Amino acid sequence: MANIKVTIAYDGTNYHGFQEQRGTAFQTVQGVLEERLSRLAQREIRIIGAGRTDAGVHARGQVINFDTGGWPIPTPKIVYALNSLLPRDIAALEAEEVPDSFHSRFSAVAKTYRYVINNGKRHSPFLRLYSYHIPCLLDVEAMRAGARRLLGTNDFSAFRALGTPVKTTVRTVREIQVSREDELIYIDIQADGFLYHMARMISGTLIRVGQGKLSPEEVAGILASRNSLKGGPTAPARGLYLERIEYPG
Amino acid sequence: MANIKVTIAYDGTNYHGFQEQRGTAFQTVQGVLEERLSRLAQREIRIIGAGRTDAGVHARGQVINFDTGGWPIPTPKIVYALNSLLPRDIAALEAEEVPDSFHSRFSAVAKTYRYVINNGKRHSPFLRLYSYHIPCLLDVEAMRAGARRLLGTNDFSAFRALGTPVKTTVRTVREIQVSREDELIYIDIQADGFLYHMARMISGTLIRVGQGKLSPEEVAGILASRNSLKGGPTAPARGLYLERIEYPG
Repeated sequence: MANIKVTIAYDGTNYHGFQEQRGTAFQTVQGVLEERLSRLAQREIRIIGAGRTDAGVHARGQVINFDTGGWPIPTPKIVYALNSLLPRDIAALEAEEVPDSFHSRFSAVAKTYRYVINNGKRHSPFLRLYSYHIPCLLDVEAMRAGARRLLGTNDFSAFRALGTPVKTTVRTVREIQVSREDELIYIDIQADGFLYHMARMISGTLIRVGQGKLSPEEVAGILASRNSLKGGPTAPARGLYLERIEYPG
Repeated sequence: MANIKVTIAYDGTNYHGFQEQRGTAFQTVQGVLEERLSRLAQREIRIIGAGRTDAGVHARGQVINFDTGGWPIPTPKIVYALNSLLPRDIAALEAEEVPDSFHSRFSAVAKTYRYVINNGKRHSPFLRLYSYHIPCLLDVEAMRAGARRLLGTNDFSAFRALGTPVKTTVRTVREIQVSREDELIYIDIQADGFLYHMARMISGTLIRVGQGKLSPEEVAGILASRNSLKGGPTAPARGLYLERIEYPG
């Protein structure tokens, strides 16, 4: 018996999201991981994922954990063994043994999502599945000013699509950085947790600010409204990446 | 009547190469471009492409030309009009009117191909279609030394797969640069022309040098042998990009 934590990257294009939907034919990242890990273990393995990414959303630092049930694979060999079985659009990056109390979702203290915008004049064949193309030049300074209105502990109901019920819609956004690298714009959002579609609705709102359709001040008003009809629109899944999960210690 | 030159980028993953194969069901880049241009022109348009890229090979600077037959579309609008019809894995980058004598293939004086290697320890879900993954660290200095043996005017029969007959197997390689950027290695080859599979066989040979399986000196011997069984192996199509075509003036 050992509790193993594995960091995972995946191209979400061909998956119906991370979370397995038992009894459906949709291919999910969790479903593929469980199938391959079960093959390695020669018994059924169920995993817990830190973030439930949507269909088409990518990950560069998703974290999962699972109970090996006492398999004979030495921990340093797990990444290699798993990658030899995984399809090429999912990669195991690192694996380590963690205390039994570690739970990839409940132990997480912060998550970072990155939203990628291709702000070049022409669409790019190579970025079409990995970014949101907006040909008109965005005002990155205004986006930064808008982003600052979202920092801190707030009720983020305005940036939440209806989905699974949650105990509270209050979240703490620790940092939002908007940066430009040549034709790409990155929106990096770190928070203690994210509501359903929150990262994509914040991104959609900041894009409107960058387009001059919304002033940075109005972002504060949208947040205060707690009205999900005012936040957004929801930026497309293909631009979003689950970048990193933080744990204590 | 006007002769129009258009620069094109495409993700070659879903195409059976650039060149249209009349009477087959294979989708080609040329076939898609001709279909869309013909729709714009409301008459049949045939194009000439500068480089016949293979199935799975990408382009960031392919050049085509065609006779408009006197369509009414102003040249500055061609890129926009064409992109509105093209699938997202092909993009028109620029268009200009050129003299009737311009022929995208015969007028070209140099072509540059880039080969992209992912030399990171783990495979990347995001680069799987756009690079060749070699997890063991390659010796870039040795690859550079090997590349120098290929410069100049030579018979490149050792780096040619059998294909269309050619008048001569002599080509002039003007420049080969091998560079590393973090985990990526780029092999940039500029020549007056390329034989069938030449860029991929040169890349495959330099990769063997980088792996220590071949000394830089042996590259000169392979070139001198003019024996295609000695060059290569042919590196996979997914790492290759037609970067740029040079024209006089």
